[in-house]
Order: sequence, then structure tokens, then C-alpha cells
Amino acid sequence: MSKSKEHLKIGIIMGSDSDLPTMGRAGEALQAVGLESNVHYEERVVSVHRTLGRAVRYADRAEGRGLEVIIAGAGGSAHLPGIVASETIVPVLGVAVTNSPDTLNRALGSMIGMPEGKPLAVFQGETGAFNAGLFAARLLAQRNPELREAYLKYEADLKDGVIKKDKELAAKGSEIYLRDQRLAADERNFG
Amino acid sequence: MSKSKEHLKIGIIMGSDSDLPTMGRAGEALQAVGLESNVHYEERVVSVHRTLGRAVRYADRAEGRGLEVIIAGAGGSAHLPGIVASETIVPVLGVAVTNSPDTLNRALGSMIGMPEGKPLAVFQGETGAFNAGLFAARLLAQRNPELREAYLKYEADLKDGVIKKDKELAAKGSEIYLRDQRLAADERNFG
Amino acid sequence: MSKSKEHLKIGIIMGSDSDLPTMGRAGEALQAVGLESNVHYEERVVSVHRTLGRAVRYADRAEGRGLEVIIAGAGGSAHLPGIVASETIVPVLGVAVTNSPDTLNRALGSMIGMPEGKPLAVFQGETGAFNAGLFAARLLAQRNPELREAYLKYEADLKDGVIKKDKELAAKGSEIYLRDQRLAADERNFG
Amino acid sequence: MSKSKEHLKIGIIMGSDSDLPTMGRAGEALQAVGLESNVHYEERVVSVHRTLGRAVRYADRAEGRGLEVIIAGAGGSAHLPGIVASETIVPVLGVAVTNSPDTLNRALGSMIGMPEGKPLAVFQGETGAFNAGLFAARLLAQRNPELREAYLKYEADLKDGVIKKDKELAAKGSEIYLRDQRLAADERNFG
Amino acid sequence: MSKSKEHLKIGIIMGSDSDLPTMGRAGEALQAVGLESNVHYEERVVSVHRTLGRAVRYADRAEGRGLEVIIAGAGGSAHLPGIVASETIVPVLGVAVTNSPDTLNRALGSMIGMPEGKPLAVFQGETGAFNAGLFAARLLAQRNPELREAYLKYEADLKDGVIKKDKELAAKGSEIYLRDQRLAADERNFG
Amino acid sequence: MSKSKEHLKIGIIMGSDSDLPTMGRAGEALQAVGLESNVHYEERVVSVHRTLGRAVRYADRAEGRGLEVIIAGAGGSAHLPGIVASETIVPVLGVAVTNSPDTLNRALGSMIGMPEGKPLAVFQGETGAFNAGLFAARLLAQRNPELREAYLKYEADLKDGVIKKDKELAAKGSEIYLRDQRLAADERNFG
Amino acid sequence: MSKSKEHLKIGIIMGSDSDLPTMGRAGEALQAVGLESNVHYEERVVSVHRTLGRAVRYADRAEGRGLEVIIAGAGGSAHLPGIVASETIVPVLGVAVTNSPDTLNRALGSMIGMPEGKPLAVFQGETGAFNAGLFAARLLAQRNPELREAYLKYEADLKDGVIKKDKELAAKGSEIYLRDQRLAADERNFG
Amino acid sequence: MSKSKEHLKIGIIMGSDSDLPTMGRAGEALQAVGLESNVHYEERVVSVHRTLGRAVRYADRAEGRGLEVIIAGAGGSAHLPGIVASETIVPVLGVAVTNSPDTLNRALGSMIGMPEGKPLAVFQGETGAFNAGLFAARLLAQRNPELREAYLKYEADLKDGVIKKDKELAAKGSEIYLRDQRLAADERNFG
Repeated sequence: MSKSKEHLKIGIIMGSDSDLPTMGRAGEALQAVGLESNVHYEERVVSVHRTLGRAVRYADRAEGRGLEVIIAGAGGSAHLPGIVASETIVPVLGVAVTNSPDTLNRALGSMIGMPEGKPLAVFQGETGAFNAGLFAARLLAQRNPELREAYLKYEADLKDGVIKKDKELAAKGSEIYLRDQRLAADERNFG
Repeated sequence: MSKSKEHLKIGIIMGSDSDLPTMGRAGEALQAVGLESNVHYEERVVSVHRTLGRAVRYADRAEGRGLEVIIAGAGGSAHLPGIVASETIVPVLGVAVTNSPDTLNRALGSMIGMPEGKPLAVFQGETGAFNAGLFAARLLAQRNPELREAYLKYEADLKDGVIKKDKELAAKGSEIYLRDQRLAADERNFG
Repeated sequence: MSKSKEHLKIGIIMGSDSDLPTMGRAGEALQAVGLESNVHYEERVVSVHRTLGRAVRYADRAEGRGLEVIIAGAGGSAHLPGIVASETIVPVLGVAVTNSPDTLNRALGSMIGMPEGKPLAVFQGETGAFNAGLFAARLLAQRNPELREAYLKYEADLKDGVIKKDKELAAKGSEIYLRDQRLAADERNFG
Repeated sequence: MSKSKEHLKIGIIMGSDSDLPTMGRAGEALQAVGLESNVHYEERVVSVHRTLGRAVRYADRAEGRGLEVIIAGAGGSAHLPGIVASETIVPVLGVAVTNSPDTLNRALGSMIGMPEGKPLAVFQGETGAFNAGLFAARLLAQRNPELREAYLKYEADLKDGVIKKDKELAAKGSEIYLRDQRLAADERNFG
Repeated sequence: MSKSKEHLKIGIIMGSDSDLPTMGRAGEALQAVGLESNVHYEERVVSVHRTLGRAVRYADRAEGRGLEVIIAGAGGSAHLPGIVASETIVPVLGVAVTNSPDTLNRALGSMIGMPEGKPLAVFQGETGAFNAGLFAARLLAQRNPELREAYLKYEADLKDGVIKKDKELAAKGSEIYLRDQRLAADERNFG
Repeated sequence: MSKSKEHLKIGIIMGSDSDLPTMGRAGEALQAVGLESNVHYEERVVSVHRTLGRAVRYADRAEGRGLEVIIAGAGGSAHLPGIVASETIVPVLGVAVTNSPDTLNRALGSMIGMPEGKPLAVFQGETGAFNAGLFAARLLAQRNPELREAYLKYEADLKDGVIKKDKELAAKGSEIYLRDQRLAADERNFG
Repeated sequence: MSKSKEHLKIGIIMGSDSDLPTMGRAGEALQAVGLESNVHYEERVVSVHRTLGRAVRYADRAEGRGLEVIIAGAGGSAHLPGIVASETIVPVLGVAVTNSPDTLNRALGSMIGMPEGKPLAVFQGETGAFNAGLFAARLLAQRNPELREAYLKYEADLKDGVIKKDKELAAKGSEIYLRDQRLAADERNFG
Repeated sequence: MSKSKEHLKIGIIMGSDSDLPTMGRAGEALQAVGLESNVHYEERVVSVHRTLGRAVRYADRAEGRGLEVIIAGAGGSAHLPGIVASETIVPVLGVAVTNSPDTLNRALGSMIGMPEGKPLAVFQGETGAFNAGLFAARLLAQRNPELREAYLKYEADLKDGVIKKDKELAAKGSEIYLRDQRLAADERNFG
């Protein structure tokens, strides 16, 4: 896809590699619309608590390196997204990473309360990480017709998937639908 | 400012005119970096519960009308931002509008849980509305050097304000600082 | 049962087929009082985020198709029930579907805060889905004596079940009662 | 209005007369679609804690007295709606009445967790009380074309109100819109 | 123990036999201070939602049957303890029964918000059920010297258990202490 | 009243005199059933944080001084009720005292989580303090027929009050009822 | 007091001068045990969002400047305390500053979830700010006998205050105690 | 290490040996910077509910025994840390111990609301226990250059660990990184 002619546009950063199962979903979303790892986006571990200097340098150089959006995930105290958003003019998408319901609320609270003047757009959990990837794709798609087409195709597929399930459920009713799902799952696991 | 040569780029929409004290702050932020009402941004009341057809048309035509970002605020059930985000490819910033702590949590919950495939960036309350405006400005600034300069000037002023307060507090201590604040407030009110 | 002479009266809709383990319980309740799937009630997947047009059409045509009550379940942002309730005059029962305690609160908050003028009756979780089914049956029973009898029979059986357990517990005490429960469960599993 | 030829159809009950500022809004909703107090609906104070016998009798006789729906509000422990819903086959709409955010959560929790077999449809706060009234009106409107027309008229007025506000805001912008609102409020208070 | 000469003094009631794993702990506490099932205390299933008449009769006759304290447990909406407390002058201890953190909060909220004039003493969860049993024992011990001695003995044993553990931990340190605990557990399971 | 022949039976203690507006309501409840301050009950300030020795002595001597129940209120960390309950065999009623919703939850959490073996019966807020007083009266009434009569009279008055309000509301409807309440309030304030 | 011979030992920093009404209480606590502003402690405004460079320098130089403890307060996202704690080896006491219950929880969550390796001791609200001051005084008192004496004197006064109030309440009862408090307050306001 | 020439400086106490899996982490942190169990720190079980006298003696003698900091952990009602902090002038670090999200909130609320005059520094959960150990080490390091070096070495290792992971992730991308993590885990488990 000719999008690969473009340079690095998106930084995906996280406070710890334990955030990777969540934050990896942002990259999955980018791939779902045709973007490529290490070409269009990078993935980095950048801790403001353990490596603040590196985090600040990452933020300071982001615009110069051509990044157009940063997706920053963290759990617990979750200070990374807000600090990076404060140190750069590049728009930052914060993802509240969760290990438990309790952790999730702490990370969300830490991100949603940014002071006036320092904007941070907030997403939550694995689904939020995926959606943050799509949000970044929407931004890039505004100047990339090919990406825009891929994005619209992704959305059309989503829609078709729901319609297909609706027709199946309407025809079968819930009991048979659920039974068939179980059979299909068994098929995948043991077939 | 020559930014006025540009067309309408930002839509600020809300579910009810009772959201205006909060959502008006988004416009304030845009003005703080030099953008003009009804030139660069519009403000609209669009309810998905009472005028769903209009809301859907607003979303469907947003890209065609040149909108590059939509800021959508709502309180209570707060369905507007998510529905609009689902019907357009334009990036949408949701603002959870509050009348009370209880209301705030409901609106935030309604926005932060969007399903996979339909991204919504979330902000909260009056400060969040202001910051959503700044976030929108960051997006536009990527292709508007003049706006970028104005934005950086805004941030530099924020910084200088804190430094000035720090020097004053360090010199006076908290008791005199707070007394002087009270005297200045009295002066403004009764002078 | 002569109730089958009636036409479709109840729509059970959900935002995703992942809601089916919860929403299937609404149909179980209807069957418990003698109503039949695809005769008296239908089950559909209708997403306001992915297939808004279909959802709006479903709401718009509900009254004309003879639906007297809609049971609408969703999790996460859970916008489906409120949007459908806003687009039809048919009474809508919303069910907050849960995958985790956190999700539950978001869906409940999204439903319970509907704006003035657009009523949505709220239920929660699997038990709530079942009870929403019974609530729908109460509505239909007002004009269907046979259904009313079946409903009262269902309630009488509930009552008898509690009395039977009370007598058993009063006679055995908790230790033996719990032991016998375990033995009966073992019997079912391994007998 | 010829609806007054009908008999009493709706009972609005509450655990204490301190719930009346909230529960009175249910009656306002009924009046908004043309129903009349003490003709189509009654308002009662019925406490399950202080007058359980009366509450049980109210529930037991509800169907016989022709009630087609009961709207039951309570705050704090808020046991009234669930107990009444358990003692009658008439559909019951519970309204969680609030004096403070804390109280609200207790009442909502007490209502939303009804056990399997005993359905209670839940609404919350003053807006919820109003909407419970509208929900009741939707039920009656299914067999009352005149009420149905009045209901649709009420909804059309809601829609027109939003459109009118949207046009005004789009034309004026938020600053002038809010200023004019303040001037109009002053006019009303001091004119 | 001569306490068995006394009659039934304590009623342990619950809304469902699914509450028995929690509520059985109240009986365990009573046994820990020497009271006997079906002699000093009874265990009953009494639902206010499914068998309200029986629940009211239980409350009405409690004083006449010689009950000096009722321990009432329920989960979810958890109306049983408050309704029973309202219908009798016998002191009632409510136990919020939990199946999940979410359920627990609902039951606790439903019990802690009783209106003025109808006291309900609240306990929570399995530990709370056990402690409600001990609280009941404290009440009876005021007129039963033998029970008082047994109660004080129980408390002294608790104290000795902590002192013993403290000495062991102080001597071993946490690593060896935890290792020895694991070895002892293995011994019990596989020895 | 011959109850005054009895000695001190109830201790009402609190962690700070700022708890008195809440805890004073416990004494009001006792007076409502005829008990007298400093004859049947005492009120004390006893802090486990500032005067632990005195608090422990209060608990140690409670049984010897003839106290049959202790009502202990505290806000914030709210350690007083649990510590006193641990140091005496006298039953202790804990009251979570509140200055704000946030404070209330902290105090409630601190009381409801007592460990196995140390029972504390929990009440919440001003209404809870009043009800704790009534709960104490129920305990004493078991051996005091005169107090029992006064208690039943108090309950009967509660019931009559609700019935009177019900009849008034049924006759007037909510609008006139609320208007008459306002007029009566004006009369009291300005008459 | 000879403590003034010592140098600056305590830094009180906050993210905004709007935190000063809360954070000024830390200085009050230090003064209550004899420490002096700008001699033993300094008060500074240091924002990690608006002046990150200054905040980092403050942390980096803290040990060299002789600071033995830093009290850092912030509200909303509240990143200051954790970032400073991560950049210095000086112990840091974080104070969650509140403007509303909602804000408080966000700040507390942001502080209590610090990652392994970066300790932050947490306090909450105005009382927490005062106690953080006392905690700092405890640290310094370990090497300052004069400060230790002043601290013990402060605690003894606290204890005497409770005992005095207890005696007054025990003698007067709550009604007269509260009346006398109101009279004394009137005296102060209008005397 | 010559730090072993010093005497016991740190007490780690907990309300129950069931807190040991959490509280053992405090000792792990101390060992990570070179301190030794039973030489520099002790671990004790001290319950304020079951052995209040021992807890009070522990607090009273702490300063005399040379303890410079106490780390006190408890779950549920979690009264231990606050009571000990009130009875000694030695600084106390409270750790909210958790068995479930619900328990955690209760313990945190019980600790964070200490009254004015009695400071308690709060940490939460297993990570909090570890960090409380590090906080204690920071205190001791102020007068122990060798410990200070070890502490700085610990922090440098933390930093290097993040940098190493960042480089690996930047090179591999998330998919290969996560695959390699899984392979390494398999190697450890089955190799």
C-alpha cells in the first residue's frame, strides 16, 4: 500500500511493558486500516517515574520527528499521558490501562482531570486502546485519501458484520444461535 | 488575524442549551488562540433524543462542510457524542457536561465505554470543554503556522503566570499571599 | 396455548450478539409464562453505533408492526435503549448488560439519565433481563386472560418454592441442608 | 378532553410526603399530555415501613380498582416500589427519590436489584419521575387514540423547541445567547 | 450445657436459600459460644417478595414466640431485614449478603438508609453474619451467666491466637513463616 | 415515669464534640420514648486518637457501671466504635457521622469491615443516630413493660401520621398539598 | 526558639496557587510546633504541567539544598507529588487537594497508585495537609529535642481539649452544650 | 554490609497473619536496598481489636526501642495504623491491605480520614507495601551514606530496566515482543 511511502506519523508509548497487552491493541487498529509498524507508527516504553528525562525528550522532539499524534497508555497513577501532553504541541490520546476495576478508576481519574491549558483526550481499557488507534487514523486520513478509503472499508465491514448476525439471530432465535456458537467454538478448539 | 481567511473548521455541538455554560468554554479556548466564532467554529444545539434526524444529518454532512473536528458535549445519559462519532469519519471530542457529581459520572460512563470500531475522545466538565477547544486548536495548528504561533504564545503565557505566582508566594509566604488575594478581590468588587 | 393465535407483540433487541447470554434470559421469562419465540416475540441484533439506520427504522416501524413493548439491552456506553426509546412511542425497557462490575455501572448510568421527555424504564443484568421479560408479560396480560392466568401460576410456583425450602431448612438446620444440597449436586453431575 | 370519561388508571404513591417535590413531577407529565388529577390518576402516601398493611392492601386491590400502572417513589432504603411490585400483577414503575447524591445511590441500588420473578422498572430523580409519568402515558395511549395524539403533540413540541434554540444559537453565538438568557431571566424576575 | 434448658431465643432468617452459605455463619458463631440449633436458634427462608404474608406473620409473632433478636440476611434489593424490623419490636440485625462487590453495595445501601423510626442494625458479608451471631450472643449473655462465661472464653481464645502468631512471626520472619504455612497446607491436603 | 427509678443503662459516646449535632439525635430518640438524660443515658466525648486511655477505661468499666448498650458515633476514620466494641462485652451500636458524602463513606467503610470475633452494629448519619437510640430502647424494653408501652405508642403515632398525610394528599392532590405546606411554613416563620 | 538556628528543612509545594487554602494548613501545623516560615520551611508554586523544567530542578536540588522532606499538594490530575517523588531521594508527602468530592477522588487515585520503586506517602484534604505538616515535624523531631518537646506539648494540649469537652458535655447534656456553643458563637460574631 | 552494625530501626506490623502476603513486600523492599530482617527491621502481628493492650504497648515503647519508623498494615476496618500513629511520636506509614476491591476501599477510607493532630501517611496494596518499605529506607538513608548509595543503585537499576525494555520494544514491535515474552515464560516453566 502506497501509504508506506509516508514517514513515521504516530507514536504509541506506554509506562511499562506490562501495558503492552492493552496498548498493542492500538497498533492492531492501525494495521486494520493498513498502516505498518515501524513505518507509520512506533511502539515505545517511556516511564515518567523511572525515566523522566527520556520521556521529556520524547515529547520535546515529537513534533520535529514528524509525529502527528501520540497515543500514551498507563495504569495506576498513570502520569505519563498528561506529562507528555504538557510538554508537546502534538495532540495526545491517553489510554487508561487496567489490571483490575480498581486500577482502572485510578488511571481514568488521573487522566480526566488535566488542568486548564493542557489538553489530554481520554480513552479507557483495551477497547479504548483500539479506538485510540482508530482516532489517530481518522486524523491522518484527513490528508491521505488512500487511508480514508481503507478506514471507510473497515467501518463498512463492521456494519455488515452486525447485519449478518442480526439475520442469523432473527432466523434461529437465541437458543439455537447460542448452541451453534458453542458448536463452532468447540470446532475451532478441538476440530 | 489572517486565520480568518480559512473557512469553518470546528463544530461545537451540545444536547441542550443548558449545556452552554460548560460548552461555551470550548469557544473561549478557541478565541484564546485567535479563532473566531461563526468564522472558524460554529455552536449548535443538536439533540439525539429530540431531533435525531438533524443530529444524523449534522454528522453525515460534517466532512463535506469542511469540519475537521467536532466537539460534542452532553450531560446525563449523554448519547450525543457517541452517536455523532459513529456516523462520521470526522474526529469527535466528547465533553461530559455536569450539573452535579452524580450527573458527571453518568455522562462520563456513557462516553468512555464506546464499542470497538467507533472512537470517541473524552474530556470532562468545564475545564475539559476548554481543553477540548485547545485540542482542536492543536489539530488545526498542524497545517496553520500562524495558529501554531498563537498556540505556543498561549502556552508561554501560562508558564509565565505560574512563575510569577511562585516568586510572589516564595517572597510573601502563604498568610500574606492569601491576605493580598482577598484585598485584591475586595478591590475588584467594591473599588 | 391459544396465545399463539396472537401476533408478534414484543421485540427483544441488543447492541451485539455478545449480549445474548444476558438478553436470552428475557425470552426465557416469556417462555416461562407460555409465550413463543418468533410468534409472540422476536430477538434481534441492532447496533446504534454500527447500524444506526437500521436501528432507527426498527424504532420507526415498531408501532406499525404491532409491537407493544421493546426490550433493549446493551453494555458499555449502552446507547441503544435510549435512542430507540426516543424514536418510538412504544414503551421501551432498557437492560444494562454487564461483562464486569465496571461495565455494569457505565451501562446503568447511560440509561438511568435519560432527558426529560424521553422515558426509558431500566433493568440491570441477567436477572434484570429476565424481569424485563416478566414486566412485558404483565403489560400483555392486561388484555389476555389466558396469559394472566399463566403469569399468576408462575408467581404461585415461586411462592410454593420458597415455602418448601423454608420447611426443609427449618427441619434440617443449615449444616444438613447445605450437605444435602451438595449431595444432590454431586448426584446430578456424576450420578 | 374526552379522556376524562375514563376512570382512574394510574396510581402515584410515595413513601413519605417529603418525596412529593420529586413525585409531583410524575403528575405534571400526565397533565402535559392531558390527563387529570383524581380523575385519571391519584397521588398517595403509602409507607411500607410505617403502614405496611395499607401498602399491601393498596397493592392487592390495585388491579380490581382498575389501575393499569403504579408509579412508586421512595428515597433512602426505598423498599416501597419493590414490595408493591411483588404484591400485584399491575406493572410498577419505581422512582429513586433523592435528597443528596448519597441518598440517590442507596435508593437506586435498593430498586435495581429485585430478585428473579418480581419485575420493577426503574427511573431516577425528578427527571425520572416526570419520565415515569410519560412511560405510563405511553402504556395508556396504546388503547386511547386521543391520548396518543396528545402524546405525539407533546413530543413534536419538544423537537420544535430544540430546533428553535439551535437556530438562535447558530445565529448569535454563545456569548450573546447567554447574555440574552440572563436579560430574559432578569426581565421575568424584576420586570 | 444448661443453656439448652432455655427456649428458642434467636431467629435467623434469609430471603433465599442461596443466602445460606453466608447466613450459616451466624449459626456457627452461636455454636462457638455454646448455643444449639433448633433449641436456641432457628434458621428460616422467608422472602418478602415471594412470601410477604409469611414474612409479616413471622415478624408479628416473633415477640410472642419468645424471640429476643432476629438476624435477617438478604442480597440484591435486600428488603427483608428492613420490612421485618418495621413489623416487630424485637431488635433486628440486618446482614448484607453478597454474591459480588456490586451486589454487596446494593444490599448495604438498601439496609443502611432505613427511615426515622424503624431501626435496623447493619452487618455485611460472611464476617458480618458471624459477627451478627456474636452480637446476638452478647444480648442474651446479659441475662445468662453461663453464656457470658462462654463468650469471654471465646474472646480470650481469639486473643491467644494472635499472640501465638505474633511470637511465631517475630521469631521466623515472613519468608519462613509463609513457607511453613504453605507446607502445613500441603500436609493437610495431601498428608 | 417510673422508668426513672432505673439506673444509667445507655452510654452515648462520640469522638469529637463536632459529632454532637448528629449524635444528639440518639438522645432525642430516647426522650421520644420517655427516657431521661443523665438518668437513663449519658453523653460523652471520648476520642481513641487523642484520649485512648480514657476510651479503653470507658469500655472496660461499661459492664460494671451497668451500661447495657453503648451508642458510639464518629466521622472520618471513625475508629472509636470498633475499638470500644473490641474492649467490652456490652453490645455497641456504631453511627457513621457525616460532614459530607465523602466523609460518610469513609466512616461507614471503617465500621462495616470489623474482623471476625468483634461485632459492631452499624447505623448511618442523623437518621441512623436517631434509629440507634430506638434500637437501644428496643433492647431495654424487653425487660421494662412501661418502656415497651411507650415504644409501641411512639410507633403508633408514626403510623397515624402517615395515614393522616395520605388522606390529605388523596383529597387535595399534590399541587394544593405543596401550596398548603408552603403557606404553613410561611405562617410558622413570619406569623 | 533555638530551632531557628537550623536551616530550611521542609519544602511545601503546590501545583497552583488555588491549592493554597488547603496547603497553607501544612504551614499552620509547622507553626503550631514552633517552626517558622521562610526559615524552616518554604512555600512554592511548582506546576509539572506548566513549568515541568522548574519542577524537575526543584526535585533535583532538594537534597543539596538541605530539604529533609517535601510536602507536595495538587488537585485534579494531581501529577506533581508523584513526579517530584520520582526525581528525588528526599521523602515526599503527597496531599490530595479538593475542590469537590469528585475532584478529591481523582487526586487521591492519581497519588495512591504510584508504581513499584517510587514511594509517595499520601494524605487527603485540608486535615491531611495539616497532618502532613505534623508528619514532617515528627521526622525532624527525631534529631531535634526542642522540637520533640514542642510536638509532645502540642499533643498533650489536644488531649486536654478533649477531656475538657467531655467533662462539659457529661455535666450539661447535649441540649445545653449545643445551646451554649451557639451563644458563644453569637458572642464572638456580634459581641 | 556494615549497615548491620546498626540496631533495629523499622517495625513492620500487621493486624493479622493473613496480611502477610501483602506486608511481606515491605520487607522485600528493605532487603532490596540491603537491610536485614530481625537486624534492621522486625515483623509482628499486632491486632488492636484482639490484643489492644499489646498494640498500645508496642506504640508506647517504639521510640524507646529505637524504632525510627513503623509500617502498619491492615485490611477491612483497618484501625491498627491509625491507633498506633496516635499513641507514638514515631512516624507511621499505613498500608491498606486488600483481599478484594471492596475491602481495599474500606481500608483506604479508614486510614485516609485521620483527624487533625494525628498524622498517618497512607499507601495501598502490595505495591504500596513495597513502596512503604522504600519510603522508610529513604528516611534512614538521610543519616546512612551506605544505605543512600544502595538506594540510588536500586533506582538506577529500575531506570536501566525501562531503557532496556524500550530498546527491545522499539526494535521488535509489540507482536514479536509479546511472543518472545511468552516463549521466555514457557522456557522458565517447562525448560
